[in-house]
Amino acid sequence: MAWNTNLRWRLPLTCLLLQVIMVILFGVFVRYDFEADAHWWSERTHKNLSDMENEFYYRYPSFQDVHVMVFVGFGFLMTFLQRYGFSAVGFNFLLAAFGIQWALLMQGWFHFLQDRYIVVGVENLINADFCVASVCVAFGAVLGKVSPIQLLIMTFFQVTLFAVNEFILLNLLKVKDAGGSMTIHTFGAYFGLTVTRILYRRNLEQSKERQNSVYQSDLFAMIGTLFLWMYWPSFNSAISYHGDSQHRAAINTYCSLAACVLTSVAISSALHKKGKLDMVHIQNATLAGGVAVGTAAEMMLMPYGALIIGFVCGIISTLGFVYLTAASWVL
Amino acid sequence: MAWNTNLRWRLPLTCLLLQVIMVILFGVFVRYDFEADAHWWSERTHKNLSDMENEFYYRYPSFQDVHVMVFVGFGFLMTFLQRYGFSAVGFNFLLAAFGIQWALLMQGWFHFLQDRYIVVGVENLINADFCVASVCVAFGAVLGKVSPIQLLIMTFFQVTLFAVNEFILLNLLKVKDAGGSMTIHTFGAYFGLTVTRILYRRNLEQSKERQNSVYQSDLFAMIGTLFLWMYWPSFNSAISYHGDSQHRAAINTYCSLAACVLTSVAISSALHKKGKLDMVHIQNATLAGGVAVGTAAEMMLMPYGALIIGFVCGIISTLGFVYLTAASWVL
Amino acid sequence: MAWNTNLRWRLPLTCLLLQVIMVILFGVFVRYDFEADAHWWSERTHKNLSDMENEFYYRYPSFQDVHVMVFVGFGFLMTFLQRYGFSAVGFNFLLAAFGIQWALLMQGWFHFLQDRYIVVGVENLINADFCVASVCVAFGAVLGKVSPIQLLIMTFFQVTLFAVNEFILLNLLKVKDAGGSMTIHTFGAYFGLTVTRILYRRNLEQSKERQNSVYQSDLFAMIGTLFLWMYWPSFNSAISYHGDSQHRAAINTYCSLAACVLTSVAISSALHKKGKLDMVHIQNATLAGGVAVGTAAEMMLMPYGALIIGFVCGIISTLGFVYLTAASWVL
Repeated sequence: MAWNTNLRWRLPLTCLLLQVIMVILFGVFVRYDFEADAHWWSERTHKNLSDMENEFYYRYPSFQDVHVMVFVGFGFLMTFLQRYGFSAVGFNFLLAAFGIQWALLMQGWFHFLQDRYIVVGVENLINADFCVASVCVAFGAVLGKVSPIQLLIMTFFQVTLFAVNEFILLNLLKVKDAGGSMTIHTFGAYFGLTVTRILYRRNLEQSKERQNSVYQSDLFAMIGTLFLWMYWPSFNSAISYHGDSQHRAAINTYCSLAACVLTSVAISSALHKKGKLDMVHIQNATLAGGVAVGTAAEMMLMPYGALIIGFVCGIISTLGFVYLTAASWVL
Repeated sequence: MAWNTNLRWRLPLTCLLLQVIMVILFGVFVRYDFEADAHWWSERTHKNLSDMENEFYYRYPSFQDVHVMVFVGFGFLMTFLQRYGFSAVGFNFLLAAFGIQWALLMQGWFHFLQDRYIVVGVENLINADFCVASVCVAFGAVLGKVSPIQLLIMTFFQVTLFAVNEFILLNLLKVKDAGGSMTIHTFGAYFGLTVTRILYRRNLEQSKERQNSVYQSDLFAMIGTLFLWMYWPSFNSAISYHGDSQHRAAINTYCSLAACVLTSVAISSALHKKGKLDMVHIQNATLAGGVAVGTAAEMMLMPYGALIIGFVCGIISTLGFVYLTAASWVL
Repeated sequence: MAWNTNLRWRLPLTCLLLQVIMVILFGVFVRYDFEADAHWWSERTHKNLSDMENEFYYRYPSFQDVHVMVFVGFGFLMTFLQRYGFSAVGFNFLLAAFGIQWALLMQGWFHFLQDRYIVVGVENLINADFCVASVCVAFGAVLGKVSPIQLLIMTFFQVTLFAVNEFILLNLLKVKDAGGSMTIHTFGAYFGLTVTRILYRRNLEQSKERQNSVYQSDLFAMIGTLFLWMYWPSFNSAISYHGDSQHRAAINTYCSLAACVLTSVAISSALHKKGKLDMVHIQNATLAGGVAVGTAAEMMLMPYGALIIGFVCGIISTLGFVYLTAASWVL
């Protein structure tokens, strides 16, 4: 009984504690950056900068698209698992809301320190959303196997490791990774798989059974899939250099994603006994086109280069989904 | 019989009549503003203004986010009431479509008169959507208790009073209310509650029974919740001054909303007998973070200030939802 | 058996073949335009152009709205047909992904050739989405009557004819058609009806039976309807001239759409035996307001002119939907 009562207070206390810590750390460390601070107004008269040139106008629309991807896209993507549809959306909301705060701090300490303050602007918000996207990818692997508290703990560690990993890749190894294929998606997927491996070696058969998709859930999952698919060009171009780089990153992603749909459909239909389409394949594989082109999105790939990436990726990821998922139940 | 026939023609005639009145009033009063008028083109050569500096480019993306909040956000928010899911979306659509036209006129007469004409541009569209958002809030309180005609009448009066209230607050009392917490949300909520009180003192038990939420409806309601939550930074910054003010309003709202999710989850779980989460609490309370920071969103709150607002608000609004809703059935 | 196996491989092979052809044609013909090419960077120093003036920043937010209309809007619009809900979304996804690639080529050959290359930028992406929107309109007429392969073939021919039709209207006849009412919607609707007529003269009764809408499907269909309705101002203004034209196109569409909702509700309710609302009417008719104002959207219509267009259109299209649909089953 006492133990039960204990359990009952764990989630509320964890949430409140984490939020109080966030408030204190933000109080000590976080300030606005130059373009969000009211002092901008007085300084711009010296520098002859117009309010219209504020970074906000060049980043905010992309930020909102990324925001939709994280909360609606990743949230609804997993609703195809009928049994977990609602937790998928709800828990994703909780972990993302905590994750973006912790990411603003962690990424700030590594990349945006000025004097002793982290300065935040719209670019930080995009980066925080990127970091949380990686947690959402990992979340897909552990859905239905973890409690909200475990998710918050996982988010805490993953965001921390994400920021360290990002620092090593971008600052120490000087790697270029525009769309974050390495820092976000690969990292997220492996982190998720590792967590699953640690948490669960048993009960796999049970889980498999619950992975059946049903009609209504599939329509909800398509909402997630489509918002991820549509806004991926924004994802890959959101923090590119202004001008032609950002323009090119959007075009390349658009082309790669379109190609990926056709090859995913082809492979999914070829692998089905009756030649039908399995929407779960398509939901997963079509997104691979965006991930694959991510790292190179702002390079001079040429539209046909982007199509080739999407083409190859649609094939590999559908095959991968079919054979590796099957294999993972055997292990 | 005759009476029945009468009833049958009431809705069509009301709609047509209202729309004809709108056409006439628009014909007499409404014209484009400077930046939407073709004369801009000839005048800009004198003033040396580029087409690229048109207000459209700095307001339109935020306008579209607000537009999604009004029609998808508020529309789907109420679908958690299983029985009224469909009317929620449909009636919300009808009242908002009428409301934005009437709001363009009412707000125009108070704030945008030039000579004897109301001049409209993208900023007016945002303001009209804001005004209708207040009707949507009130709609939440009367859903399932009113007919479409009653809703149209309610919309007519509420938009009128909204514009008067806004004029008194902003022009006479010179109050600052960037995100419209006072003019929009508080006004909307009290208006809705007043209408409910007038319309219904009986049948409350019945209504309560119908407020049970079910699985599918909850997923639809999450679509509404998430689009409201995600786009709230656009709502609070849509008509801020250009530059750092608008930038800051978005950052502050983002922070407040994130904090509000965690505290809502904490309180909701603490109040549940078995420590589970009630998604209806979370759907309502998370949005409070956006409302609460609204008035002060463009001020130099600092990110930790915004977090504190969201923190406090998540607690108060969840407690309020649980105890006041319960209380209201007893009264 | 052999024949069955044959069938089984048809869809995969068609998809792969089409995608390989796209890759080759893109390789031979498609390059970035000036504003998406890295050479922009070196040339802008000569021309004294800032990265901030890149076309990307003035077109991309509208592009994303149009993208949502094509994939979520048209996809979910047809989910009111309960039986075909899932194919509606999935097949729409497939045809649109192929269609945008083929449209980039076809429209490129007619309008964007430089030397022997098609140069693509964000404006081409919008145009490709426009072209595919016409296929989505036609798709609505054949849903449930065609296989994925037939859809891909239909898309191939329709995009081809669309580009030819567009070339004749815009380049040879010098017609103005800002929102694409003629090139996109009228063309799409007649193409769809023609295809239906050719494919099916029988089994109409059966189809009719399946057109019943149910509660859950209707809520999904409202997602489609609302995203189409909300983003139509972006659709009609996405490729207008910069400045006041684009601004005006958005305002006019906003006004026309709002008026159309009220008159659709009026007529739908008047035609119903018990004065109730048929959401299918409203879903179809409200969109007519956007289509109707399309051609003239950037002209100096004045807001009341836009309201009148929406007013008339709501009446005609609801009457048309009720009587023509009924009539079509008799023919």
